[in-house]
Amino acid sequence: MQKPSIPKGTRDFGPAQVARRQHIFNVIRRTFESFGFAPLETPTLENLSVLTGKYGDEGDQLLFKVLNSGDFAKDVTAADLTVGSKALLPKVAEKGLRYDLTVPFARYVAMNRGTLTFPFKRYQMQPVWRADRPQRGRYREFYQCDADVVGTDSLLCEAEIVLMIAQVLNGLRLDKFTIKINHRGVLRNIYESLYAADSYLGEKGRENDLFVALDKLDKIGKDGVTKELLERGFFGNATDRLFEALEVSGSFEEKLKQLGAFFRKEGVVPDGMGDGSEDYRSLFELNQVRELLAASGFQHFDRLEFDPTLARGLSYYTGCIFEVKINNVQMGSVSGGGRYDNLTGSFGLPGVSGVGFSFGVDRLYDCLEALDLFTVTAETPTRCLITHFDQASGRAALPLLAELRAAGIPSELYPDASKLQKQFKYADAKGIPLVVIMGPEEVAARVVKIKIMASGTERVLPIGEVVKALTVE
Amino acid sequence: MQKPSIPKGTRDFGPAQVARRQHIFNVIRRTFESFGFAPLETPTLENLSVLTGKYGDEGDQLLFKVLNSGDFAKDVTAADLTVGSKALLPKVAEKGLRYDLTVPFARYVAMNRGTLTFPFKRYQMQPVWRADRPQRGRYREFYQCDADVVGTDSLLCEAEIVLMIAQVLNGLRLDKFTIKINHRGVLRNIYESLYAADSYLGEKGRENDLFVALDKLDKIGKDGVTKELLERGFFGNATDRLFEALEVSGSFEEKLKQLGAFFRKEGVVPDGMGDGSEDYRSLFELNQVRELLAASGFQHFDRLEFDPTLARGLSYYTGCIFEVKINNVQMGSVSGGGRYDNLTGSFGLPGVSGVGFSFGVDRLYDCLEALDLFTVTAETPTRCLITHFDQASGRAALPLLAELRAAGIPSELYPDASKLQKQFKYADAKGIPLVVIMGPEEVAARVVKIKIMASGTERVLPIGEVVKALTVE
Repeated sequence: MQKPSIPKGTRDFGPAQVARRQHIFNVIRRTFESFGFAPLETPTLENLSVLTGKYGDEGDQLLFKVLNSGDFAKDVTAADLTVGSKALLPKVAEKGLRYDLTVPFARYVAMNRGTLTFPFKRYQMQPVWRADRPQRGRYREFYQCDADVVGTDSLLCEAEIVLMIAQVLNGLRLDKFTIKINHRGVLRNIYESLYAADSYLGEKGRENDLFVALDKLDKIGKDGVTKELLERGFFGNATDRLFEALEVSGSFEEKLKQLGAFFRKEGVVPDGMGDGSEDYRSLFELNQVRELLAASGFQHFDRLEFDPTLARGLSYYTGCIFEVKINNVQMGSVSGGGRYDNLTGSFGLPGVSGVGFSFGVDRLYDCLEALDLFTVTAETPTRCLITHFDQASGRAALPLLAELRAAGIPSELYPDASKLQKQFKYADAKGIPLVVIMGPEEVAARVVKIKIMASGTERVLPIGEVVKALTVE
Repeated sequence: MQKPSIPKGTRDFGPAQVARRQHIFNVIRRTFESFGFAPLETPTLENLSVLTGKYGDEGDQLLFKVLNSGDFAKDVTAADLTVGSKALLPKVAEKGLRYDLTVPFARYVAMNRGTLTFPFKRYQMQPVWRADRPQRGRYREFYQCDADVVGTDSLLCEAEIVLMIAQVLNGLRLDKFTIKINHRGVLRNIYESLYAADSYLGEKGRENDLFVALDKLDKIGKDGVTKELLERGFFGNATDRLFEALEVSGSFEEKLKQLGAFFRKEGVVPDGMGDGSEDYRSLFELNQVRELLAASGFQHFDRLEFDPTLARGLSYYTGCIFEVKINNVQMGSVSGGGRYDNLTGSFGLPGVSGVGFSFGVDRLYDCLEALDLFTVTAETPTRCLITHFDQASGRAALPLLAELRAAGIPSELYPDASKLQKQFKYADAKGIPLVVIMGPEEVAARVVKIKIMASGTERVLPIGEVVKALTVE
């Protein structure tokens, strides 16, 4: 006899877990909808032609591919076998599992460009699959909750992302959070300021070396970043300059001003896309987001941090970048996002600017669990169990059962005439708060006994008054 | 440039469709929970060792298999290639996509037998995948909503399935339905009654020939069934006898009585598992279900039909069988189920009796659409759009926007200072019912103009009274 199991990195969710997860989904959904985002769902299966090449080489490796149905091996030759999996793949699989929600969204927008109204605001809460090595906070099947706006470059969208993140985390009582924000242009300007001090950096395409090293500052510290940069051929005076740039402190606004002064000092050319002043577009935009937040009554500036070292999604984000951590739990980021200027370009619809972000539901769950913040714990939605002694009293309970359900009180009649002790044990194990006792005496007297499980108190009520009594409670 | 597409038999669901589908899920979820069923979710990916062999040969063919990650072809030999896909499969794929919700449920019960409280009542609403040929009402990715009870053989469970089916369909306003019910024992007794008249039937294993032919009665009629049975070697007097057995008419109860009389006349031996009377267990159980329904105040006996020809799930159902159709739509069954005495046997947990049923959400959706019964149609949850003239009036609108959202009114500020006409077009296309107009004059006078899109009526309100006015409406 086989011992059944589930694939590694996947999980079953029992009743209490589903209820807790639904709580997270509900908080996110309510927030997204209150900001005017409309739901979209895309298929689990996507054509590999849509998925491949969108997530880098590593992503292509981590895609789950689905075997063609029927005689999938019919086109495979012995020569393919010599080459190996790479040659076989296009012959045996043309579909894969959704890897994130952004690419399917881009595919949807491109396919439906003619009928959508822009700006198009959609949210999507669905599972994604990655053949990653499972570890703490990382699963092979996990849920993402994304919200994106495409078809406008208004910075109101960036400000609203910050508002939504704060609203969701407050709604979940995860109130010790930090929202880090940066801008792709800040990173570029930092690079340019080093370039002015280090002609070796004139070689193009070295930007990413810098940002990838910089992004590790949290983990490996200043010395580690310096070492990595020197190894990669940066000059010592460039790395000194780098840390001078990053030595910004104080409020969000003060940091912006200090960095602007540094850029001016280093002679970095402002890109002039700001409001016509000498400000840098990136700093100007970050400040605009701050102003929009202030005008919206944003209460959490103490949890919003401008972090010029934040570098995520370098290959696709072009404007603001976000990343969110819960401070009092050891856990990767629970949310992140940014603006991209060419989301749908690879699907034949260039020049559509958009901005979006994503919550990792499984990480939020793990945080809530680690902080013991869940309140929903029952193993069943049932509020009331009717116990009985024999077939006759069981049958006599049926009208009351129907009445309770019609009144919106999820209820069960224990299905068998088992010993009362067993029926109570069932209520106890499932966390059912109320038990109605219906024995032959009660039936004869047209009454029931009701026991409140938490306190153990009992009372006797005429059968006709039960629903009213329980509805009031 | 590739033209993006989605795999055949799969669908994107835009905002209005998701809202409509959510309506169906909500009605089903509320019903399941009101009957005390608790939610379970299982992974999309299951080990093929769990799935294979559970759905018959055809089912194994229709399973979507997932390629092993990494160098999946490393163990494939040229000899495997000569044999073909069958030899390759176990070497390249060890996981598959969920094919239904029953097998994962059985796997879950077997894996968690030690911690579950029985009777265990679970519901599950998740997509399943089948590599079937797509056609009307049949998709490759579709949702099932199942409710099952395991660990009791109480007929109350069967009665409650009928109650839940009626409650869901009434909740969806699909009130022209027929719930067909039969019992595996009725089919066996019918076979036995033919056997008495046709010694040729003594060969065992011919039962299924009879039931498979019988199940087509709706489609091919009496003559078609007779023809098929004669071709399969049944005697003419057996088929005559068959139709005599099926010539039951009148109420549910009358039909049971007529069939009992026929069995007695034909000398079929009652299996004696009834209440000690001479009734047949199957007929006795069907009558018990009817009595339990009557005692529960079931209002729809006119839509509950005892159909002795109903034959579904012959390889696993052992007791009552259900099937539900919507009468006024050309569509396959929207729900079905039955009792199985050995659900978890293949996972090492024998002798667990259970009963369950399933709704096909996609078919319910198609029925509701065909009958034009959907009321939710907006492309967005947004109730109120704030339009503005320029950056200053846009920014002045932010406190009102925050106030509307805090009051539970999903709202948007149009993100760009576009022409008013364009902003109104946006509200119109998305079905946003209310538009607030905030121009420089309004900002100066601390008022807004509100337009009700459906009627075109406008009124001017002090900005401080907007939320109150809209909350009341």
